Amino acid sequence: MLLRMSNLFLRTLREDPADAEVPSHKLLVRGGFVRRTAPGVYTWLPLGKMVLENVSRVVREEMGAIGGQEVLLPALLPREYYEETGRWTEYGDTLFRLQDRKGADYLLGPTHEELFTLLVKGEYSSYKDFPVILYQIQEKFRDEARPRAGVLRGREFHMKDSYSFDIDEEGLQASYDAHRDAYIRVFDRLGLDYVIVSATSGAMGGSASEEFLAVAPTGEDTFVRSTGSDYAANVEAVATPAPPALPIEGLPEARVHHTPDTATIQTLVDFLNAADLGRDFTEADTLKNILVKTRAPGVDEWELLGVGLPGDREVDLKRLEAALEPAEVALLDEAGFAANPFLAKGYIGPRALLDNKVRYLVDPRVVTGTSWVTGADETDHHVVDLVAGRDFAPDGTIDVAEVRDGDPSPDGQGTLYTARGIEIGHIFQLGRKYTDTFQVDALGADGKPRRVTMGSYGIGVSRAVAAIVEQSHDDKGIVWPREVAPADVHVVGTGKGDQIGEALRIARELEARGLRVLVDDRGGVSPGVKFTDAELLGIPTGVIVGRGLKDGVVELRDRGTGAREEVALAEIVDRAVAACRA
Amino acid sequence: MLLRMSNLFLRTLREDPADAEVPSHKLLVRGGFVRRTAPGVYTWLPLGKMVLENVSRVVREEMGAIGGQEVLLPALLPREYYEETGRWTEYGDTLFRLQDRKGADYLLGPTHEELFTLLVKGEYSSYKDFPVILYQIQEKFRDEARPRAGVLRGREFHMKDSYSFDIDEEGLQASYDAHRDAYIRVFDRLGLDYVIVSATSGAMGGSASEEFLAVAPTGEDTFVRSTGSDYAANVEAVATPAPPALPIEGLPEARVHHTPDTATIQTLVDFLNAADLGRDFTEADTLKNILVKTRAPGVDEWELLGVGLPGDREVDLKRLEAALEPAEVALLDEAGFAANPFLAKGYIGPRALLDNKVRYLVDPRVVTGTSWVTGADETDHHVVDLVAGRDFAPDGTIDVAEVRDGDPSPDGQGTLYTARGIEIGHIFQLGRKYTDTFQVDALGADGKPRRVTMGSYGIGVSRAVAAIVEQSHDDKGIVWPREVAPADVHVVGTGKGDQIGEALRIARELEARGLRVLVDDRGGVSPGVKFTDAELLGIPTGVIVGRGLKDGVVELRDRGTGAREEVALAEIVDRAVAACRA
Repeated sequence: MLLRMSNLFLRTLREDPADAEVPSHKLLVRGGFVRRTAPGVYTWLPLGKMVLENVSRVVREEMGAIGGQEVLLPALLPREYYEETGRWTEYGDTLFRLQDRKGADYLLGPTHEELFTLLVKGEYSSYKDFPVILYQIQEKFRDEARPRAGVLRGREFHMKDSYSFDIDEEGLQASYDAHRDAYIRVFDRLGLDYVIVSATSGAMGGSASEEFLAVAPTGEDTFVRSTGSDYAANVEAVATPAPPALPIEGLPEARVHHTPDTATIQTLVDFLNAADLGRDFTEADTLKNILVKTRAPGVDEWELLGVGLPGDREVDLKRLEAALEPAEVALLDEAGFAANPFLAKGYIGPRALLDNKVRYLVDPRVVTGTSWVTGADETDHHVVDLVAGRDFAPDGTIDVAEVRDGDPSPDGQGTLYTARGIEIGHIFQLGRKYTDTFQVDALGADGKPRRVTMGSYGIGVSRAVAAIVEQSHDDKGIVWPREVAPADVHVVGTGKGDQIGEALRIARELEARGLRVLVDDRGGVSPGVKFTDAELLGIPTGVIVGRGLKDGVVELRDRGTGAREEVALAEIVDRAVAACRA
Repeated sequence: MLLRMSNLFLRTLREDPADAEVPSHKLLVRGGFVRRTAPGVYTWLPLGKMVLENVSRVVREEMGAIGGQEVLLPALLPREYYEETGRWTEYGDTLFRLQDRKGADYLLGPTHEELFTLLVKGEYSSYKDFPVILYQIQEKFRDEARPRAGVLRGREFHMKDSYSFDIDEEGLQASYDAHRDAYIRVFDRLGLDYVIVSATSGAMGGSASEEFLAVAPTGEDTFVRSTGSDYAANVEAVATPAPPALPIEGLPEARVHHTPDTATIQTLVDFLNAADLGRDFTEADTLKNILVKTRAPGVDEWELLGVGLPGDREVDLKRLEAALEPAEVALLDEAGFAANPFLAKGYIGPRALLDNKVRYLVDPRVVTGTSWVTGADETDHHVVDLVAGRDFAPDGTIDVAEVRDGDPSPDGQGTLYTARGIEIGHIFQLGRKYTDTFQVDALGADGKPRRVTMGSYGIGVSRAVAAIVEQSHDDKGIVWPREVAPADVHVVGTGKGDQIGEALRIARELEARGLRVLVDDRGGVSPGVKFTDAELLGIPTGVIVGRGLKDGVVELRDRGTGAREEVALAEIVDRAVAACRA
């Protein structure tokens, strides 16, 4: 079906929408692909719907290729199953909740682990039934606190979610690997520049997990990359390399110093450097001890935890939460200090923690043989030359210090730097979190029940549309990768003669050759407006039927490179077909 | 992609689900097409999803053929627009309402007139922009009081809704006619037996409206058909033919009779027949006057209305509501009678109504010159031979008496009888109800604003799946029309030899020939089970690779006719292809 701009439900805008900050939001609205209906809730206009469908088609094809079977679950879900897994509560304000006319509680599905688990439990019961991969492409609902950037972070959005069910770890790994490969093919076909980062699990529970991040300065996710390799990871997942242990022999003895008014690292370093101790000190020479409290799920009591790290680094709260998950964690407040008088605030050292049976974990850089200035557990006192492995033995390590540009890459190649990305995919070895809750067993070959193990995998379909635009645009508009473009070729008829008629003729011929064609057949619209619209809409190949027509030539344009070439009218169909199939 | 039953996510059931009463519900669940997630909320399993997609494809194709442009609106909609049209309230308990984290009110879209109207207002402004037809296929949400019959009446369901926008009545009529034709093509392609009935407008407001009803004894909608023509209509829309007026001259004078204890039609008729008045009376000779109260939208005061109709007929409340719409209507209660002492309950006649300025409307059969026994406006008294047009002049007619089997067809051909149907489509000339609310104008050719006029049109996509099964099944299972079947051909390998391998080979060949193939390649499953499943699943063409294989023959089956034929192995692919393309 020829798309004719003379009757296409499309009005482009010259001005950026007032609420738009990022390129994809501006361009998708200006190009008439989407319109805002409510905060974080968007309508897809005809061209936008086509792009969304194209992305969905690519996802379907690649999911089918790994044996994924498409189903469709409802969005309206009963509370009870999410209550059983605890997510009714855990999701907090992010869950849209409602009641039906009888007062029964429902939610709008933010993701469907519970229901897929129950679905498989309902149908399958033998090891012979597995593995199975089920997926759907469906609207999801999350009441984001700050919906932003158009369809980049919406409250109603389109997502492919799939779930794998296996009877053993090897099966789960295979399902996971198949998804990883499928995602690579999907995002390659979508023309996205992306990295695969190790991720922590978030609220899902479980173990191995990777995120696909489309690299974009406007992305909400921070990740680190290496200058010397392909290494990329979520900040939460960066494993700080531990330096080798140092020999203890010959190190000076630990000595306590009176260091008045040095409750901060900076005041301490200044004091030490003014104190003529025969050497210079930096913040990195100090061992800062941070007190937090943690609480395991289902436990009432909070437990103290001391975290020791070099004084030149702060604790990264996201890394801290990820390291302790699924336990809750909070910094110790004044009441907490008051309740534990052995904590000399500002002067806490390993000694008091260990003496008082407070679990004490240290940064991986605090290896045996390293010497530190740290608190002496008495106000206005610090100890110098306290040696790890000689003067104190921590309970283990915890990798929660902030990651900084220039830190060594965990793979030993190059140094790390921070970049930003848009989460477009997430693959996740859930394990048995949900199958335990719902007791999903398969009878094994040996006649014994085996607890089924699960993976869950998501692709943000509508977000991918935005991510593509974030990466593929210029100051004039969108540059759609061909696979997702709403058309292959944009035939523009300009001028007052028979150019429009000729443009329609060429468009029909191109369509007959199997191309998807958008034709600008509008009368009374200037060439300038048509060119501006064409650049904004971003169809990969353009054919301009303009003044050259009288001389038997038309123009072939490439939206991506900007290349323009005059082509004889007789050759344009073949040339345009060739350009679209290149 | 070959659908292989060895790994298809499908488990058929031998027993009907306990909550299922109608065939489509039983068979769609037993055949593994759908599963219940919550009351009126269903999951579509792989084969069901395919059927749903096939129906959607047919709808898309026919919508595209009339120039419909596909868009996709959100399900989560802000209250404000539905408040403006009054539907936030009018929908009552049927609307799913919810609040977001900020306490803002939202609803789940039951239908999208408001949003489409605003969408067009946002983009279009000139008469040159029109007409436009926009549509979407999307989940809709309605909190039905009695969700029933599986996907036949769900609370979350799939619907195609489209909306036409025109600048004049002729345009609206053309858009309406185009939809009517498209719907005929859609339902013909879906293989449905349906009628198109005149409908009243329901809560939508507006004028011309027709419903497409799939004929089915399990349908919720009652309609009437003619024994002598194609006439079909909703009961609400049946127009009772008025008999010709009779001459008044020579008719006996009206006389009041003392008729003690005759407050009901039956006691009255018995009394009259016992009273030796020189003739026999039937209920049809009496004029029953029913008192109701009505209230126009936005008006506080109720108004009295008398409805006069032959005593052998009851008022049909649905017809009454439809006739008075958009006004509210209720039967007058005791308090209402008490407040109007001129109403002698059981003995009300036209006189007191007309004397007291109560609007008085009569059944179309009450024409000038007809004589009636009716109330004398005094307890225990009736008047006999009261002649319409001589002794009383009603304010008009109202066609709200029950329609009965045997009533003459309004088109003069044959008599009416009652049938039941499933509403699968509804087309509706909305007019300017919504464009008035949102002030949607287009600048006319004369430079003056023209108020845009609108149609709205729906197809119940998921309901159509159920309607197809209601009409197309036998005691063994579903018989899918080819256009919507999840596969063209079902190749069944039975036996313990190389039958399954051969079945797979044939299946691949059929697939290479462009057919959609389901192959039963399950090992360890008896032929009987496979045949039972094949009949339940209802794929139109079957190829059975069984014991005959050793003699070089397989069986070709037709699910619809039950025909079976032995075919030489060498010919089966050609024969099956021919059967599928017949």
